[in-house]
Amino acid sequence: MGPHPAVAAIRLAVRRVLHDVLTDLTDNAGVTPRATANAGPGTAPPMPPAPLVLVACSGGADSMALASALAFEAPKLGIRAGGVTVDHGLQAGSDLRAAEVVNRLTALRLDPVEAVAVTVGRDGGPEAAARDARYAALDAAAERHGAAAVLLGHTRDDQAETVLLGLARGSGIRSLSGMAAVTGAGRYRRPFLQIDRQTARKACMVQSLAVWDDPHNTDPAYTRSRLRHDGLPALEKALGKGVVEALARTAQLSRDDADALDDWAAEADASVRDATGELECAKLYALPPAVRRRVLRRAAISAGSPPGSLFARHVEEVDRLITGWRGQGVINLPGRVEARRQGGRLVIRQG
Amino acid sequence: MGPHPAVAAIRLAVRRVLHDVLTDLTDNAGVTPRATANAGPGTAPPMPPAPLVLVACSGGADSMALASALAFEAPKLGIRAGGVTVDHGLQAGSDLRAAEVVNRLTALRLDPVEAVAVTVGRDGGPEAAARDARYAALDAAAERHGAAAVLLGHTRDDQAETVLLGLARGSGIRSLSGMAAVTGAGRYRRPFLQIDRQTARKACMVQSLAVWDDPHNTDPAYTRSRLRHDGLPALEKALGKGVVEALARTAQLSRDDADALDDWAAEADASVRDATGELECAKLYALPPAVRRRVLRRAAISAGSPPGSLFARHVEEVDRLITGWRGQGVINLPGRVEARRQGGRLVIRQG
Repeated sequence: MGPHPAVAAIRLAVRRVLHDVLTDLTDNAGVTPRATANAGPGTAPPMPPAPLVLVACSGGADSMALASALAFEAPKLGIRAGGVTVDHGLQAGSDLRAAEVVNRLTALRLDPVEAVAVTVGRDGGPEAAARDARYAALDAAAERHGAAAVLLGHTRDDQAETVLLGLARGSGIRSLSGMAAVTGAGRYRRPFLQIDRQTARKACMVQSLAVWDDPHNTDPAYTRSRLRHDGLPALEKALGKGVVEALARTAQLSRDDADALDDWAAEADASVRDATGELECAKLYALPPAVRRRVLRRAAISAGSPPGSLFARHVEEVDRLITGWRGQGVINLPGRVEARRQGGRLVIRQG
Repeated sequence: MGPHPAVAAIRLAVRRVLHDVLTDLTDNAGVTPRATANAGPGTAPPMPPAPLVLVACSGGADSMALASALAFEAPKLGIRAGGVTVDHGLQAGSDLRAAEVVNRLTALRLDPVEAVAVTVGRDGGPEAAARDARYAALDAAAERHGAAAVLLGHTRDDQAETVLLGLARGSGIRSLSGMAAVTGAGRYRRPFLQIDRQTARKACMVQSLAVWDDPHNTDPAYTRSRLRHDGLPALEKALGKGVVEALARTAQLSRDDADALDDWAAEADASVRDATGELECAKLYALPPAVRRRVLRRAAISAGSPPGSLFARHVEEVDRLITGWRGQGVINLPGRVEARRQGGRLVIRQG
């Protein structure tokens, strides 16, 4: 008899990602000089150490399920499996909890396993600050242990929530594209983006893995928590059970669309400039609106406008210098960048 | 003292659209032969009749506000304003209500005004069937009266709901692009897509216009009604008050993006075919995924697959013949269309 379907599903998802990690290592090895300088003639080159893959684990159901699947699959592929838990220090006793997670990961025979304490700042709100501190700690842990990859337990439900959060910004399809399966130049991998939260929870249950429910996940002070417990269930009730899957599919399709349009804009950028590199209004006008707005956004960013503060409405206002020209004055953009139309040219630069 | 801000807002929105209608009429007149054959030499050509613009009015706040703004703005631009109300015959006494709407439109000095009774079928569910019957009746009324345009009262809130309904399909950015401001080759215009429902309601109130609340709008049997009364408010509570505006902006951005990518796919289509018109797998492989999937979708539709039944998952399966070739067999698509890979060519045709 095989494993429970939920366990089979999480293992398959992890196996696929580990295969990708090995493939990437092999591809990179082909261009990286190997450490064979000390090997004498006739001596076999030293065996490279087995690659290490870490799981980032909060002790919650998603990442405990991920840790269990990594522990099961990694040895079969000659990969060492380790784990890191980040102590955000946001609740009393969080250090004790981190120690408990270390114990649970060690019980799964992960090695190395460590808890890393971080100090969460305030930049960008509580969620963004915690995330920044967490990724900095995971980056450092990956470097310290020479890990080939760090697995993250984000599920399809997390992806659906991320798409809705992006939708609320109203800034276009890039913000609808959710989380990528691979980020950080291959360091971070999300094997569970197609797995739902219920499956992860079930897999923990049937494997008798203790899980810890993060009180932040139910704290209505957090936007994502409100979305998870009220917004998304209400949406499912109105639209039907397939909403989470539909949102996750939207993420993938939007990501591909946004990539293609960004490529187009990068190519178009060169074709709409005169000999001195200034943007020509007539050529901009001839571009499809979706491409033109991306060219304008690129120009504003390269002039010094911070991407995070440059909203769709800013770009639209610059666009009206091209499509609705009636002698407007200077348009002020974030980062002290100014856009103006001058003799058939669009000039965007820091003031 | 000017009008109430809500009234000013709806009038401005209608005025802009009426200007567009006049501009389009002038542009078209330039290429249409004018009826001057009977005019003798020295005789002025007969005065063309003032163009007619109709409002489609349910008697609800949105379309009553629209009717009032049309009645106010049209005469100032030399346009005749008329109204049509559609009696769907779905509730007892709907004919009396339609007669009441005719009275109210007549009281606004619209002329002509008429009620049109339709029979709602069952195709595609109650909402789609009612919509099909309604547009058929409006098309017929527009033809009968020689109307230059028919105004529809869809608001920004309706647009937000439409985006969420599209999101639930998970079929990509085209389904996120909501309703267009202009459809039916210019016949249908939606002046209120940037106006919120509250403004329309307020404009009726301050103008002492009686409005009728359609019981369908609160009937939980209708998806849109559930979304309006439960789904969207819950989403606003989780994500903040800007959600409706963000969804409406998403619609516009997605529409432009989808248009640009469709154009790209139409161009790419020609470049990936061999001399006999077959699709070459190697050339398809080289396209960005977003463009390739659109080329494949076009090919399936032109082979006879009904667009409404051809889902993202179908196209993904065909795409795997290109990106994940491992000797798969024939892929069956809706409309008895088959896709197969054959000697480096992708063959899509009806079986």
